[in-house]
Amino acid sequence: MATESTDPGSVRPGGRTARVRAAVLRAAGDALAEGGLAHLDLAEVARRAEVGRTTVYRRWGSPTQLVADLLADMAEQSLPRTETGTLLGDLRANARLVRRTLADPRQGALFKAVIAAATCDDQTAAALHRFYEIRVDAWQPCVQQAVERGELPEGTDTREVVRAVSAPLYYRLLTSDAPLDEAAADRAAEATVAAARAGVFTRSAE
Amino acid sequence: MATESTDPGSVRPGGRTARVRAAVLRAAGDALAEGGLAHLDLAEVARRAEVGRTTVYRRWGSPTQLVADLLADMAEQSLPRTETGTLLGDLRANARLVRRTLADPRQGALFKAVIAAATCDDQTAAALHRFYEIRVDAWQPCVQQAVERGELPEGTDTREVVRAVSAPLYYRLLTSDAPLDEAAADRAAEATVAAARAGVFTRSAE
Repeated sequence: MATESTDPGSVRPGGRTARVRAAVLRAAGDALAEGGLAHLDLAEVARRAEVGRTTVYRRWGSPTQLVADLLADMAEQSLPRTETGTLLGDLRANARLVRRTLADPRQGALFKAVIAAATCDDQTAAALHRFYEIRVDAWQPCVQQAVERGELPEGTDTREVVRAVSAPLYYRLLTSDAPLDEAAADRAAEATVAAARAGVFTRSAE
Repeated sequence: MATESTDPGSVRPGGRTARVRAAVLRAAGDALAEGGLAHLDLAEVARRAEVGRTTVYRRWGSPTQLVADLLADMAEQSLPRTETGTLLGDLRANARLVRRTLADPRQGALFKAVIAAATCDDQTAAALHRFYEIRVDAWQPCVQQAVERGELPEGTDTREVVRAVSAPLYYRLLTSDAPLDEAAADRAAEATVAAARAGVFTRSAE
């Protein structure tokens, strides 16, 4: 499944402990996507994952800790960045990946649920911020390479450029019912490249 | 209070009915900012607003309808657009207004609460989308005038340009703990202008 965060539960190394974690996180993600944090119940997650309740309570303790671990896992399992040789190509690949993730019914609902939970829970907010930091770290070398190739001015805030690609897609997801189509993704990438080339993201602008 | 949505309860015309509505919406906004939709209780809103419970139940019926009316009121009470004579000036004024709104503790918490509620309630989502449509309608003439002045290419999607200004500010609010400072607002305006001038927002791009 070619989304920004591959599904918990997909093929991965590890023994029984890793399999239990994968099954629990898969069940937690399903529950979150269906009903949000308010309906995330550890006993229900254990039942869905076919794992003992005691294991789930002992290892995760609370819904909030379960969401934090789910986000950590999503970051670990995320697809690596794409390298196309041009900034526009790389950022378009990033925008399309984010778009596919948010437009996927399960993943889109999951991100909405976690963003909503983060607005009223500091631990969830910290875990969510960490997820985005990891994803920005993974993609910012695309922008760094563009600076080195001379495509972008020296002093460009490479992380802010990566964030600019995602922003309109998340904004559309959360504040409108306009479709998250590929044209929106491509426009997000093109807008970011135009702004970055114009020097908008150089640090001296701050 | 110079925020995108002036406070419900500020000076406005009308008799007793309008005063009751203003008091109830002010109390509802306070409750939402403090605890989110899950803690919005009509009886508690009536108590805070010093209005009879029956009035509140009869007129608003449910927390969801109360939030929808609050959003409608926020749109009605919003500040008009600024006219500076240049696209960058106008969009910078818009970005700074959005930033001030989101950085204001009460208003920022209120927007977070409503966005979170909209992720799991269709009526709230519809009311929220309507709020943004009204705000985009109010500001898009700035972009239309820039097209007419020859600052931007013909065929520019004027509404999408306005939305591009807000996107990075909301994205920062919801996915990071980076401060919503004026530099971020100015950069949002500058990035949008650079992209719009480059033709990224022309409809043929879709």
